[in-house]
Amino acid sequence: MQTYDLIQKTRRLIPLTEAEIRFLVEGFTAGEIPDEMMAAWLMAVCCQGLTEAETTALTLTMRDSGDCLDLSAIGAPTVDKHSTGGIGDKTTLICTPIAAACGAHVAKMSGRGLGFTGGTIDKLESIPGFSVTMPQEQFLAQVRDIGCAVISQSGHICPADKKMYALRDRTATVDSIPLICASILSKKLALGADGILLDVKYGSGAFMKTPEQAVLLAETMVRVGTQAGRRVRAVITDMNAPLGNCVGNALEVEEAVQVLRGEAPGALCDLSCALAAQMLTLSGMGDVVACRQMAEEAVASGAALEKLRAMIAAQGGDASVCDDVRRLPQAAEQMTVTADRAGYIAGIVSEEIGLACLGLGAGRASGLDAIDYGAGVRLHCAVGDAVNSGDPLFTVYGSTPARCEAAAARIRAAVSLTDTAPAPIPMIHKIVDA
Amino acid sequence: MQTYDLIQKTRRLIPLTEAEIRFLVEGFTAGEIPDEMMAAWLMAVCCQGLTEAETTALTLTMRDSGDCLDLSAIGAPTVDKHSTGGIGDKTTLICTPIAAACGAHVAKMSGRGLGFTGGTIDKLESIPGFSVTMPQEQFLAQVRDIGCAVISQSGHICPADKKMYALRDRTATVDSIPLICASILSKKLALGADGILLDVKYGSGAFMKTPEQAVLLAETMVRVGTQAGRRVRAVITDMNAPLGNCVGNALEVEEAVQVLRGEAPGALCDLSCALAAQMLTLSGMGDVVACRQMAEEAVASGAALEKLRAMIAAQGGDASVCDDVRRLPQAAEQMTVTADRAGYIAGIVSEEIGLACLGLGAGRASGLDAIDYGAGVRLHCAVGDAVNSGDPLFTVYGSTPARCEAAAARIRAAVSLTDTAPAPIPMIHKIVDA
Repeated sequence: MQTYDLIQKTRRLIPLTEAEIRFLVEGFTAGEIPDEMMAAWLMAVCCQGLTEAETTALTLTMRDSGDCLDLSAIGAPTVDKHSTGGIGDKTTLICTPIAAACGAHVAKMSGRGLGFTGGTIDKLESIPGFSVTMPQEQFLAQVRDIGCAVISQSGHICPADKKMYALRDRTATVDSIPLICASILSKKLALGADGILLDVKYGSGAFMKTPEQAVLLAETMVRVGTQAGRRVRAVITDMNAPLGNCVGNALEVEEAVQVLRGEAPGALCDLSCALAAQMLTLSGMGDVVACRQMAEEAVASGAALEKLRAMIAAQGGDASVCDDVRRLPQAAEQMTVTADRAGYIAGIVSEEIGLACLGLGAGRASGLDAIDYGAGVRLHCAVGDAVNSGDPLFTVYGSTPARCEAAAARIRAAVSLTDTAPAPIPMIHKIVDA
Repeated sequence: MQTYDLIQKTRRLIPLTEAEIRFLVEGFTAGEIPDEMMAAWLMAVCCQGLTEAETTALTLTMRDSGDCLDLSAIGAPTVDKHSTGGIGDKTTLICTPIAAACGAHVAKMSGRGLGFTGGTIDKLESIPGFSVTMPQEQFLAQVRDIGCAVISQSGHICPADKKMYALRDRTATVDSIPLICASILSKKLALGADGILLDVKYGSGAFMKTPEQAVLLAETMVRVGTQAGRRVRAVITDMNAPLGNCVGNALEVEEAVQVLRGEAPGALCDLSCALAAQMLTLSGMGDVVACRQMAEEAVASGAALEKLRAMIAAQGGDASVCDDVRRLPQAAEQMTVTADRAGYIAGIVSEEIGLACLGLGAGRASGLDAIDYGAGVRLHCAVGDAVNSGDPLFTVYGSTPARCEAAAARIRAAVSLTDTAPAPIPMIHKIVDA
């Protein structure tokens, strides 16, 4: 088998066999296929696509490139949740304790943020003392006993994906449905949960720019994951505007706590309950209407907040942040921007908010950057809200006045006002089931 | 300017500016853009194409990556001829002396063969003593005094093409019209001739498999070359069957001498005269009908053979091969295969003939291989000929009986016989003019 011929086949839309895809993935991971040949193949995939059989073979080969976890010691059906990444997306911090409070077992390994999207692990690490690493037995025991654990992806999981992603990131071959499917799903399959809920985002702050693209990606992932023997479902959600009011690590933990306290109704709370309900149905705990009611009751009763408290404590963190969010890291400086005229909030370009927060130090431009946990932005209005001249639009948090000013200018330009109320956009566009 | 963004643009069909293309080509040639990024860009070009303005910018940037020759010391309009490569294509050895005998000035630098197609330089080197290198002043003086010189491409001509071609050859990004155009034409432009005749082949033994593809490539090259200020014309010719009767270095020199002696009328002689006539019109020596007549007279009078003799002598070779072709290198072994039934020759798959000759040692599988100048095949029949059972079909020449036997089997399988005479295929499909 010659790598050259396989590149040529994909370029000419001739499907590769499972053995040919394994040859490529294993050869590249082992360093036998050089970067330039793999880059050519990846670009051919981006331009010409892969069949579903090829995408499945790619996903499974990447899964098998490293360790696959065995979660059977938990002794109950497990569920995992994955978001394709967005601005202000702290739903994992909310729906995980909700689902656990309702009896699900959420075994979750998350990634760190890179570029303008945040990572759940960074958000959790803004909680003083919180540890995102633990031995595997302890991880399984915590999921069994408390119902949830969120740790950093560790060990030898999908080394093929790690190496391929680094190459894709250098060669403009990231946004391809088969490659994104294989990258996400290979890891989710290796992590072993029985049920997998995918939150596939579309809009300016997401990889997929349109709902149609997001649906295509979701359908591919649901079919491939189902063929791999898992219960998989996808929720297609809007990411044109940031999710919730806060973007930034400690600010997002604060907002999650407020939602779980029942103090922040609205789109974020709704979506988190919807995601938790899907996780419950994937765990075999009833139909979606019953599960949604269970989720809302877990918030109302305080049971979900108790689960978050228990998870933080079990992972060495300061659980009192659930009672007093001022114990979270605070930025040195803040600056509030007000509306210079009356109108309706027509849009908040989430990609720009993400980039402004990156500039504030809330994320990493490269893999080695340190994070300012207190940095970020708090929006005082959402898309569709009416504002009067002088009303506060948002507050920026950062380490210096200069950084705050630069971010404030960028965010102000990303918030558009109109004279007529815009038509509301539903948060959930569609649910894709097996 | 970021390489990543330029790859993304080509992938998304957004045309690059001249400055962006220069950034890519210069950065890659200087080693600042790594192979994997360039491979991704090249594959994006293969899949998505380039606009004509981009192709022109690519061609000119590649031309300017090294030296550009100044042929003005020749003191007359110069003409160059390039074939995209085929099996048994020895037309340069024939049309160059014909054109020179008619008063044209042919300044030609040629390449060596690689893979199953032969190179003019290798064919000339099969003539005892023939030198394919000389100082530039001597090259110009020979063209001025004799009317023709054919030497090996040397010095610092198009280093960008050299590096890009090596990468394309590893990453299955060779067969792309804009990339082939830029590769061929950048070198032809750097070599400085005023007129450029392109022989664009199609068929099983060529890069372009169909006449339509060959016409597209030719039209692109003619337009880009004309924009670069040269007189450019292309002849689209059939390469489904080998050109002429002989394939192999010394065998092809022998056949060229026979054509110039007037002893081998037929398709090869016709095409060579047609190419010479085009070279004469590109040199401003009259219309194509008059030039064709001049070319045929140069063969009939022996003037063209005299020019070949003069060129061989000027380049240190044994010009007596023009009188006695047995002075050319001879293979140790030969083997003749006869027809096992009567019929018509329906086809001779030229790619297979080329690969069989490669197996005989007539070409190079890799750049370092030594060549057996006497090796090759002599066909005793052409497509359309009637043969009787027992008639000789072809003779194979090689170093050992085993190599001859292997090649004979391969060539026999590439020659098909039918019971009815096939429709004749014209050698020249089309002429593409500016």
